[in-house]
Amino acid sequence: MGEFELIRRFFQPLSVMASREQLILGPGDDCAIQRVPADRDLVFSVDTLVEGAHFPHDYPAFNLGWRSLAVAASDLAAMGASPVCFTLALTLPAADERWLSEVARGLARASETFRLSLAGGDTTRGPLTLSLQVHGTVPAGGALRRSGARVGDRICVTGPLGNAGAALDFLGVTEPSQAQKAVLASYHFPRPPIELAQALIGAASAAIDISDGLLADLNHILSASGVGASIDPGCIPLSKALVELTGDRAVELALSAGDDYELCVCINDEALMSLPEAVRSQLTTIGRVEAGSGLRLEGGRSLSGASGYDHFGRSV
Amino acid sequence: MGEFELIRRFFQPLSVMASREQLILGPGDDCAIQRVPADRDLVFSVDTLVEGAHFPHDYPAFNLGWRSLAVAASDLAAMGASPVCFTLALTLPAADERWLSEVARGLARASETFRLSLAGGDTTRGPLTLSLQVHGTVPAGGALRRSGARVGDRICVTGPLGNAGAALDFLGVTEPSQAQKAVLASYHFPRPPIELAQALIGAASAAIDISDGLLADLNHILSASGVGASIDPGCIPLSKALVELTGDRAVELALSAGDDYELCVCINDEALMSLPEAVRSQLTTIGRVEAGSGLRLEGGRSLSGASGYDHFGRSV
Repeated sequence: MGEFELIRRFFQPLSVMASREQLILGPGDDCAIQRVPADRDLVFSVDTLVEGAHFPHDYPAFNLGWRSLAVAASDLAAMGASPVCFTLALTLPAADERWLSEVARGLARASETFRLSLAGGDTTRGPLTLSLQVHGTVPAGGALRRSGARVGDRICVTGPLGNAGAALDFLGVTEPSQAQKAVLASYHFPRPPIELAQALIGAASAAIDISDGLLADLNHILSASGVGASIDPGCIPLSKALVELTGDRAVELALSAGDDYELCVCINDEALMSLPEAVRSQLTTIGRVEAGSGLRLEGGRSLSGASGYDHFGRSV
Repeated sequence: MGEFELIRRFFQPLSVMASREQLILGPGDDCAIQRVPADRDLVFSVDTLVEGAHFPHDYPAFNLGWRSLAVAASDLAAMGASPVCFTLALTLPAADERWLSEVARGLARASETFRLSLAGGDTTRGPLTLSLQVHGTVPAGGALRRSGARVGDRICVTGPLGNAGAALDFLGVTEPSQAQKAVLASYHFPRPPIELAQALIGAASAAIDISDGLLADLNHILSASGVGASIDPGCIPLSKALVELTGDRAVELALSAGDDYELCVCINDEALMSLPEAVRSQLTTIGRVEAGSGLRLEGGRSLSGASGYDHFGRSV
């Protein structure tokens, strides 16, 4: 079987689950065709994962498939978007049948979970790199941006933070404990809160996904909105597993470690109260937007710059 | 200057020329936002270029910038689309200031020429790879596809073929002749016929861009449409430079060499006659669509498979 055929066989099933009203034409022509409903805007974002930089050489192919699409889908959550489809630019050294089938299986699982159909792609030979571009839609003019935070807004997060950061210490453990398994699951199989985010459209004033760490990402909101903030690190939700494994380091990981793919959201009291209880209960208030600039931690130090993981990369 | 800053400085200007009615939000947030007019469909395609596979290690950065976007834009031409914007996933070993500024300059030139604004991207560290996704729009339901060719249609091409293929022999020439310069320009600075293609919407029955070679690409149309064809190689337009440089090999290059980024179009006689003279004069008839399957060359051999350049890659 030729390399063309092999790739088509494994990836073709990822393209069949699309709503034909939105993805009019999938892979196989010069372009794919998407129809965006008249009252909605298209939102899109691209993320690249390079072997050796974003995942280790022996990273399990199934996990890689899931993680690639989940990380990209997280940017849709940050805008409050409904997922539609994605493209995959896959560069790989050789078409290894077993590896390809496992990547495709991981992608397929994530594709179903996040409701993102494969719309097209490009497969080339070279060092292992995956670039995924995800497409979603939002009500016209309604996308959650980084720039809308207003003085007095609450600052909320959507889930426990720090798990994925803690997992880095246990990636090589062959028989992980229950607690280790719990944080490893957060690292290998992130689940950005896509449905929750859609419920925040029209209510939240600003949002960002927590990929680089809470401090760094919240600082992006503050800069884009021209405001400051204070947060109480003691209010950040932490998992039992994280506290069990890292003790006093738990809060630091929750503040600074990346890869959690939860959301940080700004919202005023009234808008928060207008949300259904099922949505509100998933938001934990950790602080308030203030006049000025910079981020103050209650009970401690002031942080002016974008603390956290200063990596070589910037995604949109 | 940090790497973030460097990249932002060079690439930011590429995002400012957008129509704010269509590109509502460019780089800098979690996603970009595009508004697709209600009576139009979004079309999109991704293309990856890997150093060492798609361009040599010492390939001039300005040319690389132009060529990357032109090659991607060619897929928009193949659908008859009006260009809107693009994303750039750039993986590079180090942020070399001079190299980055030259790539950005080449991209900027192509971006203006093809009217494609930078909407977003992701910059990561790793082996040099560029993935560009281009976005355009077409009248709803009107995209030119590969699958619409009908028995009796003319087969036309938009420009001279074979130039880029011939150029491969002269890439290292330090003082090229006039003729060598002419074919090298086709290779380094392809100009897909984007405006012409838009004029073919509603008239042409099928189209594809000639990236892998006329025989291979026409065969994609024939397979997708379930038809056969015969063409007369003697009718293929050839540049004077190509004939001067390659003599008897010229027709073979025009049939089988890739990288020309002209269009191959199927259109019936009546539709062709309905086109303005200025459009019609840019189309050269080289054959007819026939019942059956496969591609017959007049005065010679029958070609059943997808002859031409069988590379490891498939773009959509």
